[in-house]
Parts: sequence; structure tokens; C-alpha cells
Amino acid sequence: MNIRAAIIGASGYGGAELARLLAGHPGARLTVATASGERAGQKLSDMYPSLRGVCDIELEEFDAETIAARCEVAFFALGHGKAFELAPQLLERGVRIVDLGADFRLRDATEYHHWYKLEHRAPKLLKEAVYGLPEWHREAIKGARLVANPGCYPTAASLALAPFLAAQVVDPASVIVDAASGTSGAGRASFGLGMHHPEVHADFKAYNVGTHRHTPEIEQMLHDAALASCGTAERKPISFTAHLLPVTRGILATCYASTTLASTDAAHEILELRYADEPFVRVHPLGTLPQIKHATNSNFCDLGVVVDTRTRRLIVVSAVDNLVKGAAGQAVQNMNIMFDFEETAGLWFAPIYP
Amino acid sequence: MNIRAAIIGASGYGGAELARLLAGHPGARLTVATASGERAGQKLSDMYPSLRGVCDIELEEFDAETIAARCEVAFFALGHGKAFELAPQLLERGVRIVDLGADFRLRDATEYHHWYKLEHRAPKLLKEAVYGLPEWHREAIKGARLVANPGCYPTAASLALAPFLAAQVVDPASVIVDAASGTSGAGRASFGLGMHHPEVHADFKAYNVGTHRHTPEIEQMLHDAALASCGTAERKPISFTAHLLPVTRGILATCYASTTLASTDAAHEILELRYADEPFVRVHPLGTLPQIKHATNSNFCDLGVVVDTRTRRLIVVSAVDNLVKGAAGQAVQNMNIMFDFEETAGLWFAPIYP
Amino acid sequence: MNIRAAIIGASGYGGAELARLLAGHPGARLTVATASGERAGQKLSDMYPSLRGVCDIELEEFDAETIAARCEVAFFALGHGKAFELAPQLLERGVRIVDLGADFRLRDATEYHHWYKLEHRAPKLLKEAVYGLPEWHREAIKGARLVANPGCYPTAASLALAPFLAAQVVDPASVIVDAASGTSGAGRASFGLGMHHPEVHADFKAYNVGTHRHTPEIEQMLHDAALASCGTAERKPISFTAHLLPVTRGILATCYASTTLASTDAAHEILELRYADEPFVRVHPLGTLPQIKHATNSNFCDLGVVVDTRTRRLIVVSAVDNLVKGAAGQAVQNMNIMFDFEETAGLWFAPIYP
Amino acid sequence: MNIRAAIIGASGYGGAELARLLAGHPGARLTVATASGERAGQKLSDMYPSLRGVCDIELEEFDAETIAARCEVAFFALGHGKAFELAPQLLERGVRIVDLGADFRLRDATEYHHWYKLEHRAPKLLKEAVYGLPEWHREAIKGARLVANPGCYPTAASLALAPFLAAQVVDPASVIVDAASGTSGAGRASFGLGMHHPEVHADFKAYNVGTHRHTPEIEQMLHDAALASCGTAERKPISFTAHLLPVTRGILATCYASTTLASTDAAHEILELRYADEPFVRVHPLGTLPQIKHATNSNFCDLGVVVDTRTRRLIVVSAVDNLVKGAAGQAVQNMNIMFDFEETAGLWFAPIYP
Repeated sequence: MNIRAAIIGASGYGGAELARLLAGHPGARLTVATASGERAGQKLSDMYPSLRGVCDIELEEFDAETIAARCEVAFFALGHGKAFELAPQLLERGVRIVDLGADFRLRDATEYHHWYKLEHRAPKLLKEAVYGLPEWHREAIKGARLVANPGCYPTAASLALAPFLAAQVVDPASVIVDAASGTSGAGRASFGLGMHHPEVHADFKAYNVGTHRHTPEIEQMLHDAALASCGTAERKPISFTAHLLPVTRGILATCYASTTLASTDAAHEILELRYADEPFVRVHPLGTLPQIKHATNSNFCDLGVVVDTRTRRLIVVSAVDNLVKGAAGQAVQNMNIMFDFEETAGLWFAPIYP
Repeated sequence: MNIRAAIIGASGYGGAELARLLAGHPGARLTVATASGERAGQKLSDMYPSLRGVCDIELEEFDAETIAARCEVAFFALGHGKAFELAPQLLERGVRIVDLGADFRLRDATEYHHWYKLEHRAPKLLKEAVYGLPEWHREAIKGARLVANPGCYPTAASLALAPFLAAQVVDPASVIVDAASGTSGAGRASFGLGMHHPEVHADFKAYNVGTHRHTPEIEQMLHDAALASCGTAERKPISFTAHLLPVTRGILATCYASTTLASTDAAHEILELRYADEPFVRVHPLGTLPQIKHATNSNFCDLGVVVDTRTRRLIVVSAVDNLVKGAAGQAVQNMNIMFDFEETAGLWFAPIYP
Repeated sequence: MNIRAAIIGASGYGGAELARLLAGHPGARLTVATASGERAGQKLSDMYPSLRGVCDIELEEFDAETIAARCEVAFFALGHGKAFELAPQLLERGVRIVDLGADFRLRDATEYHHWYKLEHRAPKLLKEAVYGLPEWHREAIKGARLVANPGCYPTAASLALAPFLAAQVVDPASVIVDAASGTSGAGRASFGLGMHHPEVHADFKAYNVGTHRHTPEIEQMLHDAALASCGTAERKPISFTAHLLPVTRGILATCYASTTLASTDAAHEILELRYADEPFVRVHPLGTLPQIKHATNSNFCDLGVVVDTRTRRLIVVSAVDNLVKGAAGQAVQNMNIMFDFEETAGLWFAPIYP
Repeated sequence: MNIRAAIIGASGYGGAELARLLAGHPGARLTVATASGERAGQKLSDMYPSLRGVCDIELEEFDAETIAARCEVAFFALGHGKAFELAPQLLERGVRIVDLGADFRLRDATEYHHWYKLEHRAPKLLKEAVYGLPEWHREAIKGARLVANPGCYPTAASLALAPFLAAQVVDPASVIVDAASGTSGAGRASFGLGMHHPEVHADFKAYNVGTHRHTPEIEQMLHDAALASCGTAERKPISFTAHLLPVTRGILATCYASTTLASTDAAHEILELRYADEPFVRVHPLGTLPQIKHATNSNFCDLGVVVDTRTRRLIVVSAVDNLVKGAAGQAVQNMNIMFDFEETAGLWFAPIYP
């Protein structure tokens, strides 16, 4: 089978990464790439010389009618607040959507409003949208018209912690996620003094402390995992702190929770059992922990775990590439599930190392 | 007044940094720099071309008698397990000591043995040694013969959290310190595959999770702060996770604790009041947090705080240069206090930026 | 067709990169990976966690007989001075070889001895070996038993300059190649103080000035290009200076030569014509120049050119990934040619960006 | 003696670096710091938290009258095209000037116009201005009212090559300067996509090839050196290529010239003799070459040399910190000479290492 794909918002890092990945996909073909007005008419490879020869598609403006005629699936790679305007136009024309942005991740429109300071304009779609973390929601993704691709931090944190919430061996109120991301996570259009190379090189900082928008997304996913296993569970607020690493790519999340587990072995076994059949989650051998370069430029999420018996805390370390498993790669994985490709199609490559 | 100083173990990063700082000190003069056998006879500036013309002292082997004749103070910049052998030889000859290593930081020889896997050979000196965090132990440092210079992570973490333990507004058992350091913290002699540039560049990882030797040092200092204010307090284990940043210098510690404080303002005021008269602790304005480059290459510890009312957690962010306030600079600060110099002598310079 | 491949010396960066690339090759399969004694028995993915799940082959010791039984082609990824011992053993058993090392690159055993300070032990093979720069020696590679894969710097420099020597528009004696490489070029086994992360981070330096072993290799290739076009040409010494970049991957070569060309347009046209049909050489549009990130993690060599009419000098800028087009990728490209695969098989992926 | 200093344009990196250096100067005091409209009223340390406590001066708008009343010397740290407007206003009021910008570096207004695409508005001052490279123009600087502080690349290149032009042992027409700089050289206000961290990290590129404005400045200085020694010399165009390093600070210039010298020893001796009494030029021992981290954060220029006898080329490698010896530090050095301070006053500190 061969499907045709569109990228809505191809000029950012997420869009360009999708173009790169689709160029290597055996069953999908990029037929439409949109960008806002001034960019229309340019080739994507003029903006990204790295793509020259591999993907020279011409950028065009968004037009629902002509797009719907030329693709079966559309990837949205837009800032929040735009997808809820455009998605209905494509859905009603029969195009299935994977949205890499935040608009359909939180199921509660009030919560969306609280964290994003925006009124949601398509609240009905929130009910239909499936949160696209394949390792936890694979069945629902299969039939979905609209998949909300998880945020980069939530992907790393949820894959690390959800097995322990599902196993009911941690206190949900004790969860702290301390994570760090490379600067590509901020996107291409975000350039400014805060991302000026001399300011970021050799620096490290926390940002949006206590207010990061990925916080409720992690809470929702962890709550889902707890609910699914025990039927009833109270949702608890967690602490999430993001830091900016002076590197381009990669997220490392160090996740803490008070636990009833008595040993690292027991925790390690929970991870191994949970992810034994998952192609893209690799549980590190007992006694070792992942580093971001073990996962960078791949669709893998690498996990390692320690139980500190002095403090009765579980510490799970999780590494992903924020633009692959944390964005475009996971989006292609969702497409693979939706269109019945091999789940690893176009994604089965090892990280670049060193 | 003019004093003469020795550096015992001048060939490592801590030793070289001391040499650099002493070259700019108005009242102290470097007269002895030791290194192990093969290096003796070399100039320090042959190992560190950066120092050429500024500090060309010749390295020599350790000899207690001749060193005691040529200095009033000795800085020890050695790996653990060496200072407790050499310190008594200099102390009994009247030389005062600032030890940058770990041998005299923990007051309990059993605890030292547990974490460092070594029998302490000078346990009596543990009682006499003063933990040299000037902002908390200034009076004791003044008269000390032997000052244990704090570790780099404990400096950052203790200055961040101690005010809140002293104020009894946090639960000591809830403390989590999640910190990251530049690679110079590993020292010069530590080169190997783990510090090979291609392996570290663009990487980020946690290390020694649950077993880092700075853990009991932080616990001891936080317990001291609690004790000093309320007279009685139980010592609690804390969680400390170190990460390796792909930069040369700088530590950022993100510290978490459950708190009774209801607002960021209240927390900020505690920091401001506590450190109002401290030359080397800078409390960032409300609403801003420090970055490592704000403190790198200075003796400052920069602090910022947020209270997350959703989770009732306090988050204190602390930045220091691991080789300055976290090692050589703080050692000079301790010397200044011991010898009645201005506390800022030789240390009053701004961070390099950008 | 399906062929079986061996990697002789799989534990270094070049070997691991070959393993990564072969894992994605449609027609070749890795059946043997050797490493020296202590490593034999380990999985390659124990040394390189990035490869876990993608290439878990077990390392074994070199044994010509058993290897010849299990592969048609062997990649040598060894330090110089080893391939000339092992290659004859495989050649005589019918295995074709691509040698990523330096042993068969210089056709003159005396020159090899001069630059590598080693007596060549297989001088007869020097005549047979083909210098594997496909864009210049494709026909000879097809039938070769033994291909000497070019060095990383020579790949970048030769692709940049050879068209102009072939066109006889530059003075061969005026050539200066000023290049910089990421630290992975030094290899994995080279760790030591010189590659210690704190020493390299934020640093930049020239090394092996006037003595770098890639110098005669560039001279030989440029001379070949001149000879091929005009039948007779004197070989001239060139200047080559290598620098160490504080990044993991990538080479940028800035190449200078006095020219008779009167404009950048004329120079640009020479490049475009020469490489119009080459899949892996991309000539940047007039007025733009390549950056290393445009080529990193791909098998592309990106080129750009300027003629400075003030000085009548040609400046060609060339970017490659030192481990891909500068090593393992080009080796696979050579294998593709030798075994009649599509030349781009397993190599048609875009650089990672950003 | 105590003098009062102004910084005109204090909000950029050069201005902030001046503020940092003046804070440690024993005889000069910063009394005025200007910035454009919107910044006036802010503290410098609000823009640069690194300076908090060390330099909290308030920014004000430029007003010649009030500035002249409050200082004896003014440092201009402005983009080109502004100093020639403001300098006359201060000079006529008796304030001496060190201009860190480009407006007074080229003595020929036509040349200025050619390279900067601007009509020079104070051409008469070009005759009076002294090019402030102290190691070559010390006497003229002493009495100067207006010193043109050299550019960062020209400082590195001129100190490297001028001794050989003065000694008439190189062919001026053969000079090629291939240099690389950290990103702080671009300034603070230059943020944009080209300096966006994800685009620059792990990258390396040449820029402004054949058109860089520092080219004529190097030519002028090298010509001066030749003229001074032999009385007559023709000025020749040189090749200069700048590259962007993914680091914050530091310049390394690798300089090539055809030479009549027969050995590295002979070249090394020329450097040693020429700079024997210069406090800020350090000639590396024979057989070693400088790295940027040997000089970063100091006012030193470190030099090393090799003669490649195969090609009869001289290769001089030069390292400076672009913001210190290449800008603010050299400006303070010039002030020290103008006002009869010790030339090293406020500048005698070693590079930070590692």
C-alpha cells in the first residue's frame, strides 16, 4: 500500500524532520508541504540545504480543498492555537490527522484554557482525539481520525513512570520529573536573545518552573495509566521542571517517586515486563542508565531505573530524541499504526554515535 | 600582611585554579607547589600554558619539613584518602590547612568509611576540622587550623536549602537535589573513555545515582542548619542525583522540598534576609532564576526560588562555578577569613559573560 | 543479490558506523565482526548501547579461514600497519576488501615509509589497490579486489580541488588546504588527556602542522586528476593544516589556490559540470557555501566556491561527515560499486538537521 | 592617579566586557555608561546578571556636554557608522577616546567607503587617529586623542605576521589568513536565525569569504610593518577567511606566507626577539602551538610558528580572546598607555583553564 501525506507547517524543525523521515518511508509519500505566505513557492531544501536532493518539495499555502484531494493523512506541525482551526476542515474532507502540536492533547477544554491561555475552538474534537503514545494507546490509535502526538517531555516522562503507576507501586503525589532538553525543542521560529548562541553555549538553566505546559499532559497520562490498571485513582498534581541543555537534540528525564518497591531489581523487572514487546522502548541492563546520545536521532526511548533504599525513592531515567520519538518519529509511528504499516516502517535505524 | 601559601597537589584542575587565583591575591603569595614524582622539576606553566608568565612556579615533591619552613597555609588539592596522611605532618609543624578534598568533610569516621570505602586514618582530626562553608560557619573558620572545604555540589545545594531548613518551613525528608555539573568537576587525571570528547559532546547523563559521595555531606550540612535554629532535629536522608553536562565549568542545582510556605514571595524573602550581608551569595530578583553562566568563573553563588502552590513544593535553583565557589575560590575565601584578610580579597571579580 | 560482509576491527568508531550503515543496507548483511582479544565474545551493542536491538552481533577474533567461509567482502577498520598483514590472508581466499585505513592509499612504498615511519610489508599490493574515491575512480573500483578507502580530509579536499586541477585553471604549487574536523576523527581508542572533554570543550587548535599524514594522499590524488586530463603534470607539494573542532562529527575544508579564473561564476560552473551526475556531491547554489551541519550524518560532500578577484585566488569550501563520506559511508559506496548494487543503496538518507 | 571613564554603547558584549574589566582596574573608574533610548534608566546588571554587585551602573542616553563633565576618557563600543558622528563632540570637549569600532581604523576614507558602504563623515580625524596595536604603535598611542582599537581578527593576524613582514622574510602577496572565531564576535544585538543556538551548535562554517571588512585592516597593518623596517614597500592584497566556531569566545588565526626562512628555528627566533619585552604576547616554546583556551579570558596573544620546508611556507598560529585582547582588554591597554598607567594595570590575569 502506498499513502500520500501532507505536512501542514513544514518550515519548522518538526516539519523538516517529518520530511526527512518520510523521504525514507517505504509506504508513504510526501505530496503536500505548507508554510505561511512569504515562504510559499520556496523549496523546502532552500530553507534546509541538508535536504537538497533528498526532499525538494515546494512549499505552498494551506488550502483544505486541494490538500484533501492529494493526501490521506496530514501531519500538523504548528504552534498551539492553530490546529483547532484547521483540523476540522481536513477531517470533514476525510483526511486523517496526526497533530504534533498541543491542541488536542488535553481532554479537558478548561484545563487547556488554564495552561495555554486560549479558548479552545474545537472542544468537541477533544473527545474524539486519541493521545498518541503507542505503547499505551495502540488500539485506540488504529481507528483514530485524529491523533494528538504527545509532547517531547511527556513522551520521556510517561514512558518512564506509567508502568509504575499502573503497577501501583508509587505514590502519585510524590512524582517529580526533572528533565533537560536540547535547544531544537524550542523550534526554529523561536530565535531571539534567549536562544542567541553566545548566551546558550556553555550554559544551563531551568525555565518555566512551575508553569510548563507539559505538566498537565504528564499528569493526565499518568492518571490514565493508574486508572487503566486499578479502575479508580485520584489524579494528583506532579512537579515538572524543564532545563535547557546547550546541545541541539535530546531529552533526559530524571523521574522521582516514593515507592513501595524494595529493590532496583524489582523495579527493573516491572519495566522489562511492560516493554518486552515494544520495538521502540529499550530497557537498559540492570546497573546501567541511558544517556541522551544513546537515543539521539532514533525513535527509541531508552530507560533505566534505580531504587534508592535509603530514601525509598524510585529514580527512572529516560532518554529520547525530542524531534524523533518526541515529535516527528512518533508521529510516523502513529501513522504506521493508523494505516496498518509495520510499526517500525521508516523508523528502524540506530542512533548516530558518537 | 603578607602570607605564604603552598598548594599540595598543584597539577590537577583544583590546584591550577588555586595558582591562578593566588596570582591575583593582594596579600598571599604562592611559595610551594607540589606534585607527584614524575612531575617534580617541571614548571606548572609547562602543564598549563595558560599560566605562562603569570605563574611559572616549579613543582616539587612533598616534604613536610621544608614546606613548613616556607609557608603559613597549605591548600590540599588531592584525591580522597591522601590528605588524612599528610595533614598531620603539616599541622604539627604549625601550618594551617584548607583541604579541598573530602577527607575531613564528614564528621563521622564510620560514615566516611561507608561512602568512601576507606578506613579513616586521622579520625581525631575530624572533630577539630571545620566545615568551610563561610556563609554558615564563619566564626568557626576564623580560628580553625584545619578547614574542610565543601564539595562543589554540596556548596550549591546547601546554600540553596539551608535557609529553609533553618526556618523550619520544609520537610527534611522530602528534599531532592537534582544537579548537573561541567566536566572539569571530574578532574584532570580522570581522563578516559568516559570523558573522551566524542563521547561527552552533545550528551547528558545521570551518574552515581543513589551512591554519590556528596550525598551525606549535604545531609550533614542541612542537618546542622536545622539544628542551629531549633536546637533539635532529626537527620533525614535526602535524594541527590548528579548529571554530567557537556560543558567545562558550572553547576546548576535544582532543589525540591515540600514546604509550608504559601508563596514564592515568602520564600524569596527568606533567602534575601538570610544572605543580605553575604558578599558572595546573590539572590536573583523575584521572578528570575540563575543560569550557570551568570556565576561561571566567579566566586558567586546565585540563587533563585519558586514555590509551586499546586504541589506545595519549594524549588530553589542554585548556580556556582564548580572550580571557584565550588573549590578553589571558596578555599581562598576560607583563607581570607582564617588570616583576617578582607573576605573578598583576590576574589572580587565578575563572571565572564557571555 | 545478497552479500555477506565482515568488519575487521569493529570496536572503533569506523567499525561501529559500518555496523550501523550495514544494518540499513538492502543487499548486504553483516556476518562477522572482529575485535582484539579481550573484546571477543562481547556483543557490539554492549560497547555501543546505541546499537542495541539494531545490531547485536557478537565480536570474535580474526581468523582468516573461518571469515573467508562466511563473507564475500571485508571492511578493514584498523589503525595503519595492520591491514597489510591481514589483507593478503583474505585476498588469497577470495574475499574482496575495502580498507578504511591508510595502508594501501599511497602507491609508493617509500612515501608510505616516510610519512608513517613503517616498512610496508605488502608493497606488491600497492600496485593493485585502487584508491576508492568513486567520483574519480569509479571504473577501477568496479573490478577491484582491494580498495583503499580515502582518508577523511583527503575526501573533502580532493573533491573540492580536483576539478580545478583537471581543468588546469589553478597553480598546483599554490594549493593550501586549511581544514577542521570533529573529534570523532581521532577514533575511540585515542582517549587521553588530549581528548579529555574539559580540555577540548570550547577549544580550537591546529595539530600536526606540516606533518599530517593526509598530506601526501591529497597530493597524489590532485596529481592524478591533473595527469588524467593533460597527460603530463609535475607533482607539487601542498600545504595542509588540520584543526580540531570541539564537535563530534564533520569536516570543513577551506581550500586555496591561485587561479586563472576571472570569476566565481566560472569556477562554479566547473564544479556543476563535473559533478552533475554524482549522487553524493552537492554543489551549493552560487553565493552560498556549505556548513558542516548541512552534510553531517550523510554520505554527501557539499561544495561551494568563491573566486577572490583581488588576490586571484580560488577558495573552495567542502563539508563532509568524517565518519560517513569520510569513512564508513564511502566504504559502503565502494562496496556498492564493487558488487553492482545501486551506488546509493543503504546510503540515501538526508543529514540530520538541526 | 585616578581617571574617570565612560562607555558609549554599554549594552553590547564589548561594552559589558569593558565594564567588567574597569571594575577591576586600580586607577580608572566607570562613571558613565550609555545605551540607546529604551535601555536608558536600566541598570547594566539587569541586562547582565553576571555583573550584579560588581557593576550596577545605570545606563543613560548619550549627551556630550554632561559626559564631558564626568570623564577624561570615553570608550566607544558601537557599530560602525556611529563613532564618526559622536567622537568629534567629545574630542572638542577634551575627552580622549578609544574607539572599539571600525570607524577610525582605515586611514583612507575611500577604502572605508569601499568596504563599509558608507560615506565617512569625519575624514579629517582619520589622519589624527592612531591605530591602537600597542606592540607596534606604542609611542603614537601615548599622545593620542583618538585611538582606533584594532579589530579582533586583525589583532590576531597582525601580531602573528607583522614581525615577518618587518624582517622582510616573506612575500607579502602570498599571505593567507585563515581564522575562526567564537560567536560572541558577532555581538549581542546580532541575534537571529543565523545565530540561533540549534543552527550553530556542532556546526562550523566560513562566512563573508572574500568580502570580510577586516581584510583591508590587516593589509594596512602589515604594510605599515614592512614600511617601517625597509622604508619602501608595495601594499599587497591578502586573502582572509573568517569561520564561525561553535564556542562563545576565542580566535585562532592560522597564517600562511611563502618565506625565505629555512627553518622553524629561524622563524621562532624572529618572534622571540620581536616580542621579548611585550607583556601580552607570549611566544610558545619551539615545537608547540597555542590553542584558543590558552588565551581565552585574558589579554594575551599566544603565538607559535612552523616553517614547512617542503613548501617553503611559514605557518604562524595566533590565539586571542576576541572580547579581551581583540576588543575590551586591548582598549584598556591603550588607555593605560595614554594615561601613563602600568600597561598591565587591570589586565594582569591568567586565562581561565580549563
